[in-house]
Amino acid sequence: MSGFRFEIVRADRSGARLGRLTTAHGEVATPAFMPVASHGAVKGVAPHELRELGATMLLANAYHLAQRPGVDTVRALGGLHAIMGWDGPILTDSGGFQVMSLSGLVRVDDHGLSYRSHVDGRPGTLSPEEAVAVQEALGVDVAMALDECVSASAPAAQVGRAVTRTTAWAARSMAARGRAETALFGIVQGGCDMELRAESVAGLTALGFDGYAVGGLSVGEPRAETARVAAATVVLLPRERPRYLMGVGTPRDLLRFVAMGYDLFDCVLPTRNARNGTLFTREGKLMIRNAAHARDPRPVEMGCTCYTCQRFSRGALRHLMLAGEMLGARLATLHNLHFYLQLMSEIRAALAEGTFPERSAAAIGAWA
Amino acid sequence: MSGFRFEIVRADRSGARLGRLTTAHGEVATPAFMPVASHGAVKGVAPHELRELGATMLLANAYHLAQRPGVDTVRALGGLHAIMGWDGPILTDSGGFQVMSLSGLVRVDDHGLSYRSHVDGRPGTLSPEEAVAVQEALGVDVAMALDECVSASAPAAQVGRAVTRTTAWAARSMAARGRAETALFGIVQGGCDMELRAESVAGLTALGFDGYAVGGLSVGEPRAETARVAAATVVLLPRERPRYLMGVGTPRDLLRFVAMGYDLFDCVLPTRNARNGTLFTREGKLMIRNAAHARDPRPVEMGCTCYTCQRFSRGALRHLMLAGEMLGARLATLHNLHFYLQLMSEIRAALAEGTFPERSAAAIGAWA
Repeated sequence: MSGFRFEIVRADRSGARLGRLTTAHGEVATPAFMPVASHGAVKGVAPHELRELGATMLLANAYHLAQRPGVDTVRALGGLHAIMGWDGPILTDSGGFQVMSLSGLVRVDDHGLSYRSHVDGRPGTLSPEEAVAVQEALGVDVAMALDECVSASAPAAQVGRAVTRTTAWAARSMAARGRAETALFGIVQGGCDMELRAESVAGLTALGFDGYAVGGLSVGEPRAETARVAAATVVLLPRERPRYLMGVGTPRDLLRFVAMGYDLFDCVLPTRNARNGTLFTREGKLMIRNAAHARDPRPVEMGCTCYTCQRFSRGALRHLMLAGEMLGARLATLHNLHFYLQLMSEIRAALAEGTFPERSAAAIGAWA
Repeated sequence: MSGFRFEIVRADRSGARLGRLTTAHGEVATPAFMPVASHGAVKGVAPHELRELGATMLLANAYHLAQRPGVDTVRALGGLHAIMGWDGPILTDSGGFQVMSLSGLVRVDDHGLSYRSHVDGRPGTLSPEEAVAVQEALGVDVAMALDECVSASAPAAQVGRAVTRTTAWAARSMAARGRAETALFGIVQGGCDMELRAESVAGLTALGFDGYAVGGLSVGEPRAETARVAAATVVLLPRERPRYLMGVGTPRDLLRFVAMGYDLFDCVLPTRNARNGTLFTREGKLMIRNAAHARDPRPVEMGCTCYTCQRFSRGALRHLMLAGEMLGARLATLHNLHFYLQLMSEIRAALAEGTFPERSAAAIGAWA
């Protein structure tokens, strides 16, 4: 069959799991953070650098890639792995979230989504079947089923309808599968209503997905609610399947949600913040554009082993950022990704030793 | 003393010289092409990549760096080498050309230049003494004396006055030297008038610079004139000193001017063209944004050993460029710099073997 497997290497007393995901393009030690490569590239970072930083699986976006360069072009060029110059595992989001947030004139009905492209205004549709077909055509290792994600402020009836629709779409997604090498994950919806979350989990798990994602969080709800819903939902999910908390989060979030039993994460925070000049360190965030750093010869973070900290001072990085030099954004991104991926590596080491969460919490200092 | 030396390893029958420049930060095999890092970075390229590509000396710009981050800041951070993360030789242009082309309200008189900064509008001055002091404070290996560069259409009297002034400034520059580790080059002016060029050479060589640059070319004159003046000027320059043809040029230019006996070159062409999607190959230029490349699975150049060609297809690179991904500009720049630096390496190999220019001309195919 697909060769997709998930094994729990060690279950921690905290609820966290040290795991191993096996895909058509290799293994992923979990818990894992996936750098975001929406259009087929992590902004400014080359694939061999991602490998050296310790990235094992990347997140791309099926909607963006279907808009540009287009699915037929990706196929003609040998698939998404070839386009990205990356031979490791790739997970794609279906693009439903991007259609709803980026494109104009979106209409959602039971059939799926219809919209106008945010790139060229052309009308397009995205049904559950199309979402599966697109992601399989891209040749990715893990595809996400199309879901309906509603905002945190949506009325209860709308959240309920979205759960029903997401479950129906999930069944159609499973029926539409045509490529063994592409695993398929279902996405739990239900807002902050645990009855609806439970209904969503029941509907999806009855279908037997390869893994489960929790969506519809970090969409505007209070942070305490995010944690409450994430914690109450994860225990409903099948223990033996990978659990992916979408779009999360800060370093502190990663520690917290790993402890709940989530295995996969993605977030634009390390890369987007880097381009804005916000750097993650064990002592907290450092705003590199601040005048205080202008003549500081120290690296961004003392003791950091990343390329940026080995070669460039805070003052030098600040200069490159203020001068608008591409290298500045690139160096900042390398540091932040190193921080995130190093944190995940320390979390896994602590899980292996049975010292989680104390050791990893101590390791990230002010963040824990 | 300064440790700055130039040796001719082999004089070729063509007029070209295989040489070795020794600076406070190491050796440079000549003829050499210097990638442009005006603000302290080659756009998008990290210093270890430049080293791997075969770059040995980089060109930065004293005016840009004096504007931002400022000379005192560069010193506080350990000098320009520290800011750039580059421990090899650095040559800076004095910034006179940038003052005249970028800043507002420029006034040139015998004292020097006065202007308003193109960054923040603050008034500034640049005298020959200041230009030397700034470049020495940056800690560079080779500084350029301040010169007055006039446009190709300037009347003869103005060109003549610029030569006289450049010679007077050259004498003041020599007198202002205060740092043994920074070599100083004079810049020959004189437009397309060989009498003025000869007068400029005589004035400068009487001062005994460490090396000589030919400026005031590629400023709008016909290309045949550039070649005529470059050829007639180079033979007037002292054989035993390095000769730098500023701002040149295309791959074909490099072959032609190496054959005349020039040793050093710089040009924004490989890096700027890359960002615009124009790639150099042995079969000529390739415009990667063209629709013809959309589904082309071949590398930019068959047989090319650069990172870009080893990992990415034309179609993939086109996608990254059209999507505005930083990685696209970076990959294109890596390829073009590889092309230029590989060409220089082949030129030096051919000079060592006595097969220049035939072998290097054949090597670059359509460009020769």
